[in-house]
Amino acid sequence: MNIFVDAMGGDNAPVEIVKGAVDAVKEYGVPLTLVGKEDIVKQELAKYTYPQDKIKVLHAETVIGFDEEPAMAIRRKEDSSLVVALNAMKGDPDSVLISAGSTGALLSGGLLKLGRIKGIKRPALAAALPKDGGVVLLIDTGANADCKSEYLEQFAMLGHVYFESVLGKKNPKVGLVNIGSEEEKGSMMVKEAYQLLKNSDLNFVGNVEARDIPTTDVDILVCDGFTGNIVLKLLEGLSSYLMKGIKKSIMGSAKGKIGGVLIKNDLKQFKKQFDSDEAGGAPFLGVKGGIIKAHGSSGAYAIKNAINQSIKFIDNDVLGKITAKLQEEKAVKEQEKE
Amino acid sequence: MNIFVDAMGGDNAPVEIVKGAVDAVKEYGVPLTLVGKEDIVKQELAKYTYPQDKIKVLHAETVIGFDEEPAMAIRRKEDSSLVVALNAMKGDPDSVLISAGSTGALLSGGLLKLGRIKGIKRPALAAALPKDGGVVLLIDTGANADCKSEYLEQFAMLGHVYFESVLGKKNPKVGLVNIGSEEEKGSMMVKEAYQLLKNSDLNFVGNVEARDIPTTDVDILVCDGFTGNIVLKLLEGLSSYLMKGIKKSIMGSAKGKIGGVLIKNDLKQFKKQFDSDEAGGAPFLGVKGGIIKAHGSSGAYAIKNAINQSIKFIDNDVLGKITAKLQEEKAVKEQEKE
Repeated sequence: MNIFVDAMGGDNAPVEIVKGAVDAVKEYGVPLTLVGKEDIVKQELAKYTYPQDKIKVLHAETVIGFDEEPAMAIRRKEDSSLVVALNAMKGDPDSVLISAGSTGALLSGGLLKLGRIKGIKRPALAAALPKDGGVVLLIDTGANADCKSEYLEQFAMLGHVYFESVLGKKNPKVGLVNIGSEEEKGSMMVKEAYQLLKNSDLNFVGNVEARDIPTTDVDILVCDGFTGNIVLKLLEGLSSYLMKGIKKSIMGSAKGKIGGVLIKNDLKQFKKQFDSDEAGGAPFLGVKGGIIKAHGSSGAYAIKNAINQSIKFIDNDVLGKITAKLQEEKAVKEQEKE
Repeated sequence: MNIFVDAMGGDNAPVEIVKGAVDAVKEYGVPLTLVGKEDIVKQELAKYTYPQDKIKVLHAETVIGFDEEPAMAIRRKEDSSLVVALNAMKGDPDSVLISAGSTGALLSGGLLKLGRIKGIKRPALAAALPKDGGVVLLIDTGANADCKSEYLEQFAMLGHVYFESVLGKKNPKVGLVNIGSEEEKGSMMVKEAYQLLKNSDLNFVGNVEARDIPTTDVDILVCDGFTGNIVLKLLEGLSSYLMKGIKKSIMGSAKGKIGGVLIKNDLKQFKKQFDSDEAGGAPFLGVKGGIIKAHGSSGAYAIKNAINQSIKFIDNDVLGKITAKLQEEKAVKEQEKE
């Protein structure tokens, strides 16, 4: 098991990233490799007591910033923490890279350095969103702004394998993000995807309208990357806006202020449900290696959770299962031809 | 001025619709026509004292339900409140129809019975969404699931005319709903739309990410109808889910219950910002007549507001201004050719 953590990527790197890695090593006992500027990472590590043999440091001179053009940065910055990590994990099916840095660079890097699993049309970025009483896996959340219906069918398969393996529920329910509940609703692409999903061997339960996402009983929501990104970002933005707005309006009156103190704990508890730190990072599925995008603002707790997620990813052989699924589908298609 | 109100459409028809019409007549002094089953509508009207000469009743034997296939219902149910109203307003540029019934039937009816304004590629459904300190007009919110970039350019023009005329702000800012702030972000269609908007004479300010929608300083947000519908429904669903969730978690503890009583008024005040009743109905822009879709759950207050909106729609000659804009654009294009 080789878990690489990009020590230099993200708003709180390297301090929180290194702390999260130390916490994970202590809690889960797995070995890790921190990738980044050696002196800086070692200086951070020196703050903690932990089993020294469990954390290796892989030196990388530079880091890819949030503002750099992803594909170009991957090609040019061979000495960046991201590229050094990707090169180190290449060809190792039991490896995962976690990064809280630039999403674009991580996706480009995964595609360019690791490549797609044979048979995968488009790798997709999935995200486990909090919902009433659990999580729902949204896929794709932004890797593919332009999609064909057969990509969506494959996203559903990728989500299925990941959900069963890492989130631990057999035969998860698959829904299609759509603008109506009826079969004939949606864009041409989405209508086609409906038919493909209906005829697949997945547990497809039909369309899910956006208003029902927070309370859906579906486990996996499939959509193109444009739609998925809109859903993800709007959930984030609106939750944060409403929570701030409520606080502000309560604090505007004397009575409200007292009330605010009294409800503080309940509200905190409720807010925790929407904490992206709890849900872990977003897996980029379909490339030859484990790639987990941690939120840019990840603190130590989020990184520790992403490491736990990586352990499950490797232990449950997500890559092997995706490959097996693809071979199964290929065999079925060939049989149908005969 | 001919304002038609579908008395039979919506969850609270005819009771709340008729009440809203009576309230509007009293407050604004304009004449109205209620369309629906005469005996039922008159029975409702008999509950109120109001200037009798201001409200006419136009009889329609049936109503189109939410579950009927829109285009087919429009063609077959000539005696429905919707079709009777559309036939009555046809050819009259100073008329508006308000309906809280089936959105699909209203859009189909508007297209089939009134037709597009010459030069309009695709009429679009706009919705004024509450945002921090005002409203933002989202267009299209579902009339066109499949769009070309030039439709979006025209949606922006329609939004511009409506915003200036009815919402009363000159030179409103136009933004493009996108999955990144940079010019080169998004699907192929959206990237093309960016260039068209950039080269238009509208006040285009660039991309707006979904997370920024609740606090955007943009006045008009342009997108395809699939994306717009997702945004609209997710805003609705998540706001309602969060508000209910907060209430539930507060009511779960004794301390919280007391706090809940103390913050009740402040919360109510805050919630009012998100009340779709305040924002008025959704105008269907680009057809030869005013069409306003009121929320299915509209009460009297929402209907009264939609009537006020209709008055502004007619008084400010939205249709005439759209036609003028199209002629202007046509003239510019012809000049460029020479």
